[in-house]
Amino acid sequence: MSLEHINAVWVVIAAAMVLFMEGGFSLLEAGLVRTKNAVNVTMKIFVDLTVGALAFWLIGFGVMYGKDIFGIIGTNLFAHPQSIALSIPLPSAAFVLFQIGFTVACVSIVSGAVAERMNFNAYIVTVALVCMVIYPLSGHWIWSSDGWLAKLGMKDFAGSAAIHAVGGFAALAMARILGARKGRFNSDGSTNVFAPSNIPLASAGTFVLWFGWFAFNTGSTLDASNNALASIALNTMLSGASGGAAALFLTMRKFGKADPSMTINGVLSGLVAITAGCAYVSQWSAIIIGMVSGIIVIYATLLVDNIKVDDPVGAVAVHGCNGVFGTIAVGLFDQTHGLLTTGDLSLIKIQLLGAAVVMIWGFSSGTLIAKICEKTVGLRADEHDEENGLDMSYHGIPAYNELERFTDLPASLYNFEETTGVTISAPSSSMK
Amino acid sequence: MSLEHINAVWVVIAAAMVLFMEGGFSLLEAGLVRTKNAVNVTMKIFVDLTVGALAFWLIGFGVMYGKDIFGIIGTNLFAHPQSIALSIPLPSAAFVLFQIGFTVACVSIVSGAVAERMNFNAYIVTVALVCMVIYPLSGHWIWSSDGWLAKLGMKDFAGSAAIHAVGGFAALAMARILGARKGRFNSDGSTNVFAPSNIPLASAGTFVLWFGWFAFNTGSTLDASNNALASIALNTMLSGASGGAAALFLTMRKFGKADPSMTINGVLSGLVAITAGCAYVSQWSAIIIGMVSGIIVIYATLLVDNIKVDDPVGAVAVHGCNGVFGTIAVGLFDQTHGLLTTGDLSLIKIQLLGAAVVMIWGFSSGTLIAKICEKTVGLRADEHDEENGLDMSYHGIPAYNELERFTDLPASLYNFEETTGVTISAPSSSMK
Amino acid sequence: MSLEHINAVWVVIAAAMVLFMEGGFSLLEAGLVRTKNAVNVTMKIFVDLTVGALAFWLIGFGVMYGKDIFGIIGTNLFAHPQSIALSIPLPSAAFVLFQIGFTVACVSIVSGAVAERMNFNAYIVTVALVCMVIYPLSGHWIWSSDGWLAKLGMKDFAGSAAIHAVGGFAALAMARILGARKGRFNSDGSTNVFAPSNIPLASAGTFVLWFGWFAFNTGSTLDASNNALASIALNTMLSGASGGAAALFLTMRKFGKADPSMTINGVLSGLVAITAGCAYVSQWSAIIIGMVSGIIVIYATLLVDNIKVDDPVGAVAVHGCNGVFGTIAVGLFDQTHGLLTTGDLSLIKIQLLGAAVVMIWGFSSGTLIAKICEKTVGLRADEHDEENGLDMSYHGIPAYNELERFTDLPASLYNFEETTGVTISAPSSSMK
Repeated sequence: MSLEHINAVWVVIAAAMVLFMEGGFSLLEAGLVRTKNAVNVTMKIFVDLTVGALAFWLIGFGVMYGKDIFGIIGTNLFAHPQSIALSIPLPSAAFVLFQIGFTVACVSIVSGAVAERMNFNAYIVTVALVCMVIYPLSGHWIWSSDGWLAKLGMKDFAGSAAIHAVGGFAALAMARILGARKGRFNSDGSTNVFAPSNIPLASAGTFVLWFGWFAFNTGSTLDASNNALASIALNTMLSGASGGAAALFLTMRKFGKADPSMTINGVLSGLVAITAGCAYVSQWSAIIIGMVSGIIVIYATLLVDNIKVDDPVGAVAVHGCNGVFGTIAVGLFDQTHGLLTTGDLSLIKIQLLGAAVVMIWGFSSGTLIAKICEKTVGLRADEHDEENGLDMSYHGIPAYNELERFTDLPASLYNFEETTGVTISAPSSSMK
Repeated sequence: MSLEHINAVWVVIAAAMVLFMEGGFSLLEAGLVRTKNAVNVTMKIFVDLTVGALAFWLIGFGVMYGKDIFGIIGTNLFAHPQSIALSIPLPSAAFVLFQIGFTVACVSIVSGAVAERMNFNAYIVTVALVCMVIYPLSGHWIWSSDGWLAKLGMKDFAGSAAIHAVGGFAALAMARILGARKGRFNSDGSTNVFAPSNIPLASAGTFVLWFGWFAFNTGSTLDASNNALASIALNTMLSGASGGAAALFLTMRKFGKADPSMTINGVLSGLVAITAGCAYVSQWSAIIIGMVSGIIVIYATLLVDNIKVDDPVGAVAVHGCNGVFGTIAVGLFDQTHGLLTTGDLSLIKIQLLGAAVVMIWGFSSGTLIAKICEKTVGLRADEHDEENGLDMSYHGIPAYNELERFTDLPASLYNFEETTGVTISAPSSSMK
Repeated sequence: MSLEHINAVWVVIAAAMVLFMEGGFSLLEAGLVRTKNAVNVTMKIFVDLTVGALAFWLIGFGVMYGKDIFGIIGTNLFAHPQSIALSIPLPSAAFVLFQIGFTVACVSIVSGAVAERMNFNAYIVTVALVCMVIYPLSGHWIWSSDGWLAKLGMKDFAGSAAIHAVGGFAALAMARILGARKGRFNSDGSTNVFAPSNIPLASAGTFVLWFGWFAFNTGSTLDASNNALASIALNTMLSGASGGAAALFLTMRKFGKADPSMTINGVLSGLVAITAGCAYVSQWSAIIIGMVSGIIVIYATLLVDNIKVDDPVGAVAVHGCNGVFGTIAVGLFDQTHGLLTTGDLSLIKIQLLGAAVVMIWGFSSGTLIAKICEKTVGLRADEHDEENGLDMSYHGIPAYNELERFTDLPASLYNFEETTGVTISAPSSSMK
């Protein structure tokens, strides 16, 4: 029984939990969007887990962890990521699997911000690009030992910058170019609130994400013998708790209501913000980081509305803004080099640089992807499809048929006639 | 690679699974209450995980595991629980995290029994008090090595007494003082049944709870080298299975229907009842304990109705009654000192004492909390708020907007006008 | 800290994850069937986890792993499975728990195919028979070291044959004898499509299943020091991803819609198909196996419709057909003896034999069970009960009461009058 065996078990369990977070994203987004688009957001998560995982395995992993040139990009390991030689005692397959979980999380961040009006084909293109190039490239800079930001000493333990800020700012750019959902902003500058379709599902998604986040952060040790492992987990808990508490009390005070969406996003913000620093900060710092993130998310949500960007689930505020805040917070609270804890200025400078880089990189990439989609498959759903809901338009089925008011499904969906000669007709009206 | 490293990994995974049980509570309660209160129960779980976790970290942990006086109370470690010196090779942060999961589970038990009519502020106060004082104090008696019940030799491996019975009897007291939901009991003494709003969600919650319970019980070893670990897990499975089977067959026989709520509560009862004894009893005993608990839960539910206490999810019957039964069952089935297995009377006496103590403590505490709330923030929701549903009253949003019949959300909820000058109006009716 | 301790922790965690897959089955089936039967499918999963687990512990385990006679059947260990002497350093209780998870998964496969029209008592009989005899017997042949297929050298790492193909073909036989749901097939030979009731829940179930599948396959090592552990996990991911991608793109191309049910079943097919070979094939082979399985599932679904068998969730296509394909795929892609990888014919022959055996065994067993039910408790639900929905007929409650249109629940369900003298009346109409 070697350390490598233990690490294999540890990282496989952690990877399974991180990949399970996709179920959390699916529930959260299905709960927060309008009913008529709840299938579509779920199907996008399936694209993440299928197309995204394969794209990363095939190309992205090599870009991220392949042989470095100029600190900018990896150049081998394509389609055989398992050939990587790791410096830690860990089977390469476990490492690859864990990294797949990270990539898929990054692109799932984007999925929320573009919900309810994006062309489904464009989303597939987006997933492929993010998982093959966008996330791996900045990931290389920060996490490959030869990456230029890594060499400068940037600290981003589990990816506030590399995953959340990149995903969040790509999401901002794409949501901006995509434009708002029909009816979201009025000509007089006012904003309409669309009611989330299913709060219990959104909450369930949050609990799944929280569960997975323990693995997201502690699994990033990639090593069961890491002495910080347990305190990473506790910091994760404390920051999520204080992020949620801050948002909860702030909404109660400001609006007289304990707002579910904001509380959910407060929890997620606390988790995002501690992701970079979970291995470096004290428990008190984790609580403060969470608290600040829970305040940030509310004002950032407002700011996003204010600049007329329509982000149905608050992905920009949660992942973008708090990813950046979390990256900077390491420079403030790091126990050995933090500005507030030690007075040292060296780390905060590089963290600020790193934060700026991922913001610019994420935003530019999102813009580029949107432009590519516009020129090729088309970025935005047809007006008619959006009006009807993307569920019927792209997937031929509504999310909920509880009243069985949709038994007149277009049989053509399941029509194999041409290839097989079997006739499938629409259900007779007697079945209603 | 030391045992401490292995234990850190083990307890962190177990703690994550225990904390994930909150998602189970949320789904279970959202499914069992009426639609108009499904958001509220979910938000209460967020209070548990945010306010409750922080309150325990700050105060409760010290009360429970701090330096003992008189076997009654711990007196240090406040706001720095990580300073605890453990006698087992385990990082203190892992221990603290696991204990947070336990505290939060205890208060979540209360949340179910007071559902659908409690003032939200009163619930926040309740969470703070339970996590700072109530649970930690009796927890100290039972689980601190210096606690007076621990010194007497009380056996409560993972908390049938310390968590479930305390929570369940506090729930009983609070539900009693709170009074029944409007319309629950008729003046002629008869009872009205409110249909659970969403059975598939309630079931999903149960499966999440069952999953987490494996960690709840086996994680209580706090030590991966504990030889009983695997048999604890198997006992947990068998007792849950036989609790569910007993309730299933009993409802089929008594009522001619296989009742979902009772089957769910049968499973949970089996899990509650084996929690104290999972490390001490044989597999056959686990099956018997589960079976008895599945019968108890049905008659206990009736008894609670009979004394006109309104417990919307059956928390008193599941956690209170079967927590007590599980505590006593150790005295009956323990493999070295059980009355039925060895004829020894010594253990059953202390288990009976312990059970009586937690019943009295839980009930008194619940009464006290209710009185404190009545004198301060108010215990019960306004009649009007209860009638409308707590979702709209406290959270400004209904649980399900599937038919989009609620797009006229009060915009004031999201109205940042005063602080920010941005105007957000209600959605126009054209959006419906 | 011995290997046995580590293995206990590893297998207990894996078993908990496998058992959590039942939550996945419950959500998946509740989402895919019509609303009026969503409680019933959920209750059947509770039967699996309660009656099924106990039946296997009591009888099935001995049939599967007891002292062998003739390579056909085990003959001891009944009601004390923990007495098994394992050749690997693993506590017997952990092994028993993991095997319970496998049995329960096998019978849950059947539950989907017979949904919406089976007598609930017949389902209980089915669960008992599958868990006591059907699954354990073929399991003995394949997985007991003395089993006749095991001795021939059949390779089925985590059960494409032993679990999925057996369950899938038993499901086929039972669905065939049971007959189609009323209104499913028209007299002119055409087919009616019933809309799945809740796509977000079905998706959530899939993510839970995927999460559990990592443990299903890697846990089958039963040994944390197995060198293949991490690559098993990665193969599982890649095959699930390519199965889902293949089905997604095929439905988009054939029908112009990205079909949710088919994408879900594509993912599950990839997972089923890699289950036999996950420890034996390369990553590229895993991707190919997944891709083929995602194509198979679509045509197999059609084929099942074509022969007028009504399988509401596609269990036959997913588990039956891809269980068989996965079994054969080992013979094609095995890294040491695969036909395509090495040109060796020896392994493919035994895999084909094994696949044929489990198909015949599963189908015959399913037929036998159906006949036994017909002669005893009755196989099919009453026509009236089916029309009304099994939820009201067998469980007295609908799945969703979101509009509170069902508050007139039959109070008799909760009527304890005869035994207790307490009167519970139906809710007054004023409560609506």
